[in-house]
Amino acid sequence: MARGRFITFEGGEGAGKSTQLQRLVARLEAQGHEVVATREPGGSPGAESIRDLVLRGDADRWSPVTETLLMYASRRDHIERVIRPALARGAWVVCDRFADSTRAYQGAAGGTDPELIKALEVHILEDTRPDLTLVFDLPTDVGLARAHARAGAEMRFESKGMAFHERLRASFLAIARAEPERCAVIDAAGSLDAVETQVWETVAERLAVHG
Amino acid sequence: MARGRFITFEGGEGAGKSTQLQRLVARLEAQGHEVVATREPGGSPGAESIRDLVLRGDADRWSPVTETLLMYASRRDHIERVIRPALARGAWVVCDRFADSTRAYQGAAGGTDPELIKALEVHILEDTRPDLTLVFDLPTDVGLARAHARAGAEMRFESKGMAFHERLRASFLAIARAEPERCAVIDAAGSLDAVETQVWETVAERLAVHG
Ligand SMILES: Nc1ncnc2c1ncn2[C@@H]1O[C@H](COP(=O)(O)OP(=O)(O)OP(=O)(O)O)[C@@H](O)[C@H]1O
Ligand SMILES: Nc1ncnc2c1ncn2[C@@H]1O[C@H](COP(=O)(O)OP(=O)(O)OP(=O)(O)O)[C@@H](O)[C@H]1O
Ligand SMILES: [Mg+2]
Ligand SMILES: [Mg+2]
Repeated sequence: MARGRFITFEGGEGAGKSTQLQRLVARLEAQGHEVVATREPGGSPGAESIRDLVLRGDADRWSPVTETLLMYASRRDHIERVIRPALARGAWVVCDRFADSTRAYQGAAGGTDPELIKALEVHILEDTRPDLTLVFDLPTDVGLARAHARAGAEMRFESKGMAFHERLRASFLAIARAEPERCAVIDAAGSLDAVETQVWETVAERLAVHG
Repeated sequence: MARGRFITFEGGEGAGKSTQLQRLVARLEAQGHEVVATREPGGSPGAESIRDLVLRGDADRWSPVTETLLMYASRRDHIERVIRPALARGAWVVCDRFADSTRAYQGAAGGTDPELIKALEVHILEDTRPDLTLVFDLPTDVGLARAHARAGAEMRFESKGMAFHERLRASFLAIARAEPERCAVIDAAGSLDAVETQVWETVAERLAVHG
């Protein structure tokens, strides 16, 4: 059986990733695909227990380098136990955040040495790389306002300053520019339906889905 | 002020590391040194919370690669928040397990690619390397019998099979052979007092302590 497709949703806080992911999953399922909708950090029982360590508590609970290692520990568990088995049986995997979030949050905005992140991508991801990454782009203040409205216990990153979130946005756009074959930028400032249409057209075009 | 000294205790389960570490600390303190006695995984509040994830639960709760990343996440936190500040103020740091345990448990016995472990040593330890590593060596069955007698909730590694523990022992001895300047093998089969004497003589000789 052919390997399934692997799509990741990336971008800053409140850009609409989680909302749009559900809409994409519904569309893909309506076409008869088995779809695994998942998220990072988390997505497997072990990875979710690491998520709790990373997303809760004070903003300086972990240094960016320690955070990088925790993110990759949870990612490895998620890859081994959920993503690879799903792709191997032909399912589509749609994941809310993945390796680009580490490049942006812990790397560009956090200051972790890019060489460490590159080494982790090689050894931990191996060949589990997205076929398509949708980069949700939005003015930083709009995204934070949306995210605050929905606040809960997982506030470590939201609570970082405005300069941090500006660096995040620039970093995601730089990733998309550097890997245009894999990435597409989604203008996330539109209405829910307008963004949904953009997402669907991008997936249909890039992954030859017959919509 | 001169940087303090960094001593690590390594070896398999039940070899007597924790028992002898306390005795060494008492002797060093009696000489007027500030001594920080610590342990891995753990040694700082964040690292201790990661310790709970790693040492509890079923033997296969984490794969060796995920375990490697969790160990290095806890190690980084411990280094940044405890070990480096202590060494910088001239204290001696005596640590119950450190990076060699990852080489042995997750690497040689667990099957994690040595290239990943090497990359983590470079990026995560940086220059925080032990001045002296005491490798406690003991027949595997004797160590496990000692460890079982003291059993608690942290049984994930003890519960692995005999072949795992034989590979561990061989790996620690191979590390000591490969880095004889840094490492000394302690014959841990003797009485508590005999082992204490060996430890003290080794520290005195290698680190020019005037005993
Ligand atoms: N296009 C949109 N217009 C207006 N509000 C939106 C839009 N998309 C999402 N929202 C709202 O903004 C909030 C954040 O959306 P969502 O949780 O999907 O973002 P996210 O990118 O997943 O955020 P995070 O990175 O914090 O998980 C939600 O309350 C959602 O309903
Ligand atoms: N030389 C010795 N002779 C007999 N018993 C010993 C000796 N050293 C330690 N023990 C006992 O063996 C048990 C294990 O010792 P200890 O906890 O110090 O080992 P450890 O190397 O720290 O083990 P672990 O790797 O599991 O933490 C303890 O009950 C301890 O009292
Ligand atoms: Mg979300
Ligand atoms: Mg011990």
